[in-house]
Amino acid sequence: MTSRPWTLHPDRALPAEPAQRSIARELYQATAALPIVSMHGHIDAGAIARNDSFGDPAELFIIPDHYLVRMLVSQGFSNSDLGVRPRDPAAPFETDHRLIWRRFAENWKLYRGTPTRYWMEHELVEIFGITEEPSAATADVIYDELTEALAKPEFRIRGLFDRFNIEVLSTTDAPDADLADHAALAAEGWGERVVPTFRPDAVFYPDRAGWRAAVDRLSARSGVDVGDYAGFLEAVQQRRFAFVAAGARATDHGHLTANTTPLDRAEAERIFAAALNGPVDAASGEAFAGNMLFESARMTVDDGLVMQLHPGVLRDHAASVHETYGPDNGFDIPVAVEYARALQPLLNAFGHDPRFRIILFTIDETVYSRELAPIAGAYPAVKLGAPWWFLDSPGGMARFRELVTETAGFYNTSGFVDDTRAFASIPARHDLSRRIDAGYLSKLVAEHRLTLDEATETAVDLAYHLPLASYARR
Amino acid sequence: MTSRPWTLHPDRALPAEPAQRSIARELYQATAALPIVSMHGHIDAGAIARNDSFGDPAELFIIPDHYLVRMLVSQGFSNSDLGVRPRDPAAPFETDHRLIWRRFAENWKLYRGTPTRYWMEHELVEIFGITEEPSAATADVIYDELTEALAKPEFRIRGLFDRFNIEVLSTTDAPDADLADHAALAAEGWGERVVPTFRPDAVFYPDRAGWRAAVDRLSARSGVDVGDYAGFLEAVQQRRFAFVAAGARATDHGHLTANTTPLDRAEAERIFAAALNGPVDAASGEAFAGNMLFESARMTVDDGLVMQLHPGVLRDHAASVHETYGPDNGFDIPVAVEYARALQPLLNAFGHDPRFRIILFTIDETVYSRELAPIAGAYPAVKLGAPWWFLDSPGGMARFRELVTETAGFYNTSGFVDDTRAFASIPARHDLSRRIDAGYLSKLVAEHRLTLDEATETAVDLAYHLPLASYARR
Amino acid sequence: MTSRPWTLHPDRALPAEPAQRSIARELYQATAALPIVSMHGHIDAGAIARNDSFGDPAELFIIPDHYLVRMLVSQGFSNSDLGVRPRDPAAPFETDHRLIWRRFAENWKLYRGTPTRYWMEHELVEIFGITEEPSAATADVIYDELTEALAKPEFRIRGLFDRFNIEVLSTTDAPDADLADHAALAAEGWGERVVPTFRPDAVFYPDRAGWRAAVDRLSARSGVDVGDYAGFLEAVQQRRFAFVAAGARATDHGHLTANTTPLDRAEAERIFAAALNGPVDAASGEAFAGNMLFESARMTVDDGLVMQLHPGVLRDHAASVHETYGPDNGFDIPVAVEYARALQPLLNAFGHDPRFRIILFTIDETVYSRELAPIAGAYPAVKLGAPWWFLDSPGGMARFRELVTETAGFYNTSGFVDDTRAFASIPARHDLSRRIDAGYLSKLVAEHRLTLDEATETAVDLAYHLPLASYARR
Repeated sequence: MTSRPWTLHPDRALPAEPAQRSIARELYQATAALPIVSMHGHIDAGAIARNDSFGDPAELFIIPDHYLVRMLVSQGFSNSDLGVRPRDPAAPFETDHRLIWRRFAENWKLYRGTPTRYWMEHELVEIFGITEEPSAATADVIYDELTEALAKPEFRIRGLFDRFNIEVLSTTDAPDADLADHAALAAEGWGERVVPTFRPDAVFYPDRAGWRAAVDRLSARSGVDVGDYAGFLEAVQQRRFAFVAAGARATDHGHLTANTTPLDRAEAERIFAAALNGPVDAASGEAFAGNMLFESARMTVDDGLVMQLHPGVLRDHAASVHETYGPDNGFDIPVAVEYARALQPLLNAFGHDPRFRIILFTIDETVYSRELAPIAGAYPAVKLGAPWWFLDSPGGMARFRELVTETAGFYNTSGFVDDTRAFASIPARHDLSRRIDAGYLSKLVAEHRLTLDEATETAVDLAYHLPLASYARR
Repeated sequence: MTSRPWTLHPDRALPAEPAQRSIARELYQATAALPIVSMHGHIDAGAIARNDSFGDPAELFIIPDHYLVRMLVSQGFSNSDLGVRPRDPAAPFETDHRLIWRRFAENWKLYRGTPTRYWMEHELVEIFGITEEPSAATADVIYDELTEALAKPEFRIRGLFDRFNIEVLSTTDAPDADLADHAALAAEGWGERVVPTFRPDAVFYPDRAGWRAAVDRLSARSGVDVGDYAGFLEAVQQRRFAFVAAGARATDHGHLTANTTPLDRAEAERIFAAALNGPVDAASGEAFAGNMLFESARMTVDDGLVMQLHPGVLRDHAASVHETYGPDNGFDIPVAVEYARALQPLLNAFGHDPRFRIILFTIDETVYSRELAPIAGAYPAVKLGAPWWFLDSPGGMARFRELVTETAGFYNTSGFVDDTRAFASIPARHDLSRRIDAGYLSKLVAEHRLTLDEATETAVDLAYHLPLASYARR
Repeated sequence: MTSRPWTLHPDRALPAEPAQRSIARELYQATAALPIVSMHGHIDAGAIARNDSFGDPAELFIIPDHYLVRMLVSQGFSNSDLGVRPRDPAAPFETDHRLIWRRFAENWKLYRGTPTRYWMEHELVEIFGITEEPSAATADVIYDELTEALAKPEFRIRGLFDRFNIEVLSTTDAPDADLADHAALAAEGWGERVVPTFRPDAVFYPDRAGWRAAVDRLSARSGVDVGDYAGFLEAVQQRRFAFVAAGARATDHGHLTANTTPLDRAEAERIFAAALNGPVDAASGEAFAGNMLFESARMTVDDGLVMQLHPGVLRDHAASVHETYGPDNGFDIPVAVEYARALQPLLNAFGHDPRFRIILFTIDETVYSRELAPIAGAYPAVKLGAPWWFLDSPGGMARFRELVTETAGFYNTSGFVDDTRAFASIPARHDLSRRIDAGYLSKLVAEHRLTLDEATETAVDLAYHLPLASYARR
């Protein structure tokens, strides 16, 4: 494949059929310029507070993006070939970033049909003005062009933040986070633009490595003695209020299952005490974590934080990769998740409480029409989050609407929520979601099941008003 | 959204692509005027026998329709806000039906993309001649227009029955039903137009509240002493014959799982006796219910009733709603169901018996291509029912054909079966199914995989001949 | 339906929308004339070595094709009505092959919308020049035309092999196969065109009927005493090397689950010894079989054979059919399969080993996006096989690309692999797969997500280069 003049087609990712495309184009145009509401992400608040630059092209696009790295790994590269630093300080890894970029560019074809390809195309062309697609022949030229752009002040993170028209962005933070970067941002008037999210998984799973250290940090940060379960609950609640004070809108829970069964107080105390004294088994850990989801729901009634639940990922499937590089290196594999029975305790207790809100995510598509849409189409407290992770893709988003809308409608969904670690991909992801929703709505209009006016209002709601409302402060 | 002149587009719900639409339109037109065969519903035979009128618009459209009510509940209304009467006679509930209608009309946008929207549009425009869509502004005018229409004799149930061109309609009846309304209808020559269905769930689950009372009623109606399991079987068989005599074509079974394992006679006797003496656990209840599916299959060999199996719904998920309003109030959530192993005992015993017929339904779409189509594509006794409940929708019906046809063909499916409590929605549902099947078939024609003649014959079979044949008297 | 002039439309199975069809047509044309690489099938090597003729139309098309037979059985025929010979030599079965063909022809409508219909249409028109579609009226004429063709030398298997442009074809062989037919073929210079595949299931499930006899045959063929587990492993390894020497590229494993947990050596020895002495239970059998998958992976590191895993079929669901006719008679029903946890032992041990390769198949579509694509998109050793069995169909293949590509890309899939017992259907199956992949790629081009050049290269890779590379000798 030789390089070719490279542009983004204005109708990309819209339906091919001409009548439907013309409707979709009109719907998309009603949303294209709306501000970005990015309520769930993994951007470092410190980088925004310091207005960091992004380093070189490998540092921006490749090394930190586990979507992109895993595809090259699946074809034979090691993580360290791509600049991922092993945990062992003595272990070698590739430090020639131009070479890393070249490895990516030479393997551009692997990404055909994937969202990474779509996002990268958007980022390179739209944000950086690259005019040739990546290949062995163009790798170095593009690397130089990107390097030059990244050195400019307008390509620092705040410049891009403004250029991307981000109205509000949530970070994801440990329960013991000092939130100093958020405070610094607030002092500069950015307090409503960058808000923290309370993610307590590390202290909810007492069977996992690092739990005790995380609990100790929680204790230190909260100033609450967590020598027993009561103290632990108090410390968690205290930190939630600190997050609320720092502008947080939500909590986030990345559990293995959706279990929300509360434990007898005595049993919760027993597991907690046992874990302080030594290892507990996985069953106790899962039971305690489920109990803490229930307790988190109880707390949200008081402090107004929206609960986000992201279950169903078997983390660190490849033990050797985890051992060598640590977590989040592309070997997280989804598993089947049961929601209907698992959420029953929580929903029976809080599902009709007007002070309680929960947003459910999944990467197991089988539950969309079977469990999630019927639950969200009944319980006032529940909204369905956007397609997540592997499903944050053209087909994944289309299937979400197809499988959810007929039972839950549009207004029991949260609108678009990205979940990115890659700052430069935020506009590409939101833009793609607006195109796919426009495509879905255009089908309803073309089949005379919705008027164009209704579809336009719905498109704007999904892109902007629903995410704002779903995470609104109370 | 302001109100607008409101009509039904003749091509609604047909594919957007022009060539395919033109084929689909031709296929649809071959079926549009066919009589309605409605073999599974929840209409009250008494209402037909008495030729009831439907009351006011809230009584017709809102209060009894759990699809419609749950959507408003999911956005914060209580069931009682919408006129659903709590079980406690002293508890308040909304009795201003004009206000209830207004609540619905003001929230019309919630239904965008749902089948409720599609059916309501059909009903209001086609049956009642409404010319503006529901909104805050139009609510009262529409209420008055509907009220006026509903007072006319031609809007009583028999008038609509004729107007809808219903050839035959099945009701759903308890095993102890006296079938007096069916007898009255038969005496007027309506015996072939309205037939009962034998639904014995209430006496098959000995662990459930109300079982003993249901068994006592069964005993009283049958005149058979059900003091032991043998008497119970005899009473069930006796009532089945009474249903056959009253015109019944089928039995219906709404079990939690698809388990059909027969129990040892002694074990069945033991559970039955235990249940007469007091509570039995859920596992015994499920085992007994599975045993009774097997026994029902055995009985169908003798009396010719078609078995219908509808497993996989966790009923009354919200305990508080169940407690306040009773069952069937919108909080029934589907769960995963295994069919392949669960049906093996029944199919090994009866699956090749030419006297036995079973129609399988699901609301777990994951089993369509994996289990149900392979089973129906092999066992002569098995047909697949139409997409059920949450799946009785444009997308749900399209996915059914996509996932089932390639393995089971068209002729191992039952043709369209509605499952409605809402009488006025019957034509809308059948019409929609004819449109979606036309759309599916039009794709096969447009892709040169079927001729137009073949597709036309198939469309007519799916709409009319297959449901008649699937439930034919033997 | 009266008969009509019968031709194959050149655009069959391509998308209906004109712009997309025109792209798809161009993509398809780039692949239409490519040689066939058929790396997984059930053709008898002896038939090729002897250059057999195919007998009469019933012998070629009906009796051995369980896809085709089961559809007629699902509508009331028995297997023996269709010429399937019962195991009991005294039991009657239909021997009038013209009558069997007529039964099929009269029921041609049952196949509407199925791949059997599509393949048969291709075979009858393209290979045999039939000009009328099957029906009661045309059955005898077509039977005579087919009989006449089948008597010609160019319709013997080698003539068709050349005409079909088959570059390489894999057979499936028992571990004790003498491979004499492959040797004979090799002696004639066909050694690279017809290669064996090592399928050891019969010796891996010690709980199944026939295991002991199969183990004895393995011992006899290998010349290794399999009186204990060590001998068994040695015999298996010895036969694998014999298969490699005979040109084999792969092993094939049709297990019930995807379990790959290795057993403690002592436990494996214990189960093996117990099985030699008498029956073992199903749990032991499944544990031993899972252990042998792990051992097979270990062996593949040494001998370079590609592992193929096909789990998730409940074989011989109808006990009476199995008893009367033996296995593989259309009553194999898929069940849900878990891959993420089940494959973890094997992938942790070998998933990053450059000498190891595994190709995963499924007939449980729910795992495509949830488990299989994330696994193949991460582990270098894993490729996803083509849609298998019931999913080897237009919709099945389209859904595979939709659900897999966004996470795994195209280049972590194996390209097309047929799995047929019906030799004459091979070109139809490969042709159909090229059309469906062209359709999928045309959507990406029409939506400006891929260039036509990229799509063309990808289409050729999927049809030809990827299957060759996936099964390349090492």
